[in-house]
Amino acid sequence: MELFFSRQFDGDFCTLDADESGHCVKVLRHREGDEISVIDGEGTLYTCVLTDASPKSAQARVVKVEPDWGAHPYRLTMAVCPTKNLDRYEWFAEKATELGIDTIVPVIGEHSERKVFKTERLRRILLSASKQSLKGAVPEVAEPVSVKDFILETGSREDVTKLICCCFEGEVPRTSVFEALGELAGREIAVLIGPEGDFSREEVALAVEKGFVPVHLGPSRLRTETAAVTAVEAVYLKAFC
Amino acid sequence: MELFFSRQFDGDFCTLDADESGHCVKVLRHREGDEISVIDGEGTLYTCVLTDASPKSAQARVVKVEPDWGAHPYRLTMAVCPTKNLDRYEWFAEKATELGIDTIVPVIGEHSERKVFKTERLRRILLSASKQSLKGAVPEVAEPVSVKDFILETGSREDVTKLICCCFEGEVPRTSVFEALGELAGREIAVLIGPEGDFSREEVALAVEKGFVPVHLGPSRLRTETAAVTAVEAVYLKAFC
Repeated sequence: MELFFSRQFDGDFCTLDADESGHCVKVLRHREGDEISVIDGEGTLYTCVLTDASPKSAQARVVKVEPDWGAHPYRLTMAVCPTKNLDRYEWFAEKATELGIDTIVPVIGEHSERKVFKTERLRRILLSASKQSLKGAVPEVAEPVSVKDFILETGSREDVTKLICCCFEGEVPRTSVFEALGELAGREIAVLIGPEGDFSREEVALAVEKGFVPVHLGPSRLRTETAAVTAVEAVYLKAFC
Repeated sequence: MELFFSRQFDGDFCTLDADESGHCVKVLRHREGDEISVIDGEGTLYTCVLTDASPKSAQARVVKVEPDWGAHPYRLTMAVCPTKNLDRYEWFAEKATELGIDTIVPVIGEHSERKVFKTERLRRILLSASKQSLKGAVPEVAEPVSVKDFILETGSREDVTKLICCCFEGEVPRTSVFEALGELAGREIAVLIGPEGDFSREEVALAVEKGFVPVHLGPSRLRTETAAVTAVEAVYLKAFC
């Protein structure tokens, strides 16, 4: 099932931008009268009929609206330190989208190898992954912030289940991720995943002070992107399996 | 922690091959007297002292032996259809190794896009992932077989918990992967993951006849490699979290 994306919905009509129109009309050769499916990136699937097969600005009439298409029953924010190798971070982002996630926050930690991160490419990957995995909502990518600022901003929200995945075996009592997650339906969850060098003691202390629960993800020594996918899997599998 | 790999253990001595010796002596500049850690790929970690810093055939004396290093308490075989894009299959193999797996079997299904698969590159990736994630055992890669042959060979083993992940919603009653896994300690598990076009009805019918339990991995539409990692994660998280 091919999906198109648009943010331009006006009454009963939807307009595709130049990229989407080109793909629709020139590559896939859709013509007036063809049925196409369009997501708005906010969760809704629109079944439409093509009314103007313009290769730069195609238009279609909406015939059916399905909200919460492919949605998951929780809100998950993954605050993950960007990896030195960007491919790895992009793999995590793609897999997290297939499974179900709402926001990715690139966080820069004291031990981060990568201190600079550009979000544009990640946004394109998330859109592509949302279309491929048939989800009406495309996860957001926040602008990078420091781990400390993420802890302070999220820490003020009491309604969010906040987890920090860290090592510090023996020093910091850690719960298993499943126990810390508890009941998931309707919940908002935020998970912090550190760089290869782990969080600093000060970052963990601040997180604990602000209500983050230190958790472990089992005994395996996981790369940053693998730990991040493992946390997303823990939420997904707990909710659905 | 850097790890070396060797299959040449003779009494108290261990010899590194040309690649490993080059890395040890020329790249990392180890000298006689240095302590190095060597895995044998079968599960044991040997702490050794370098006795001959030869750049093509380094030798070291074993001073400590730790069996089952980084081991997991179950045996997991993942029979996964090779993806059209090999990067994706390699990504799955690397992540599965970090988490804990014993064998990868590339299986060719009726709907497989990729019918040919060379195992050599995958073996190098598994060795590298095992060293990076500090595991004494390197997973095996079997030679490719058809899905049907894998079902027939594995089906004859009653002591193995056999799962087949498929869609066929409504047609085939499916259990959640967690329920189907049951108790994990000391168990042998085999999981079949199909191609993007799913297994054929005949393949699923044969699997069910041979004792495979049809399972679902939640509602998300997952790529082959994502489904494979999700199954590995289900086993890992169930065992440890």
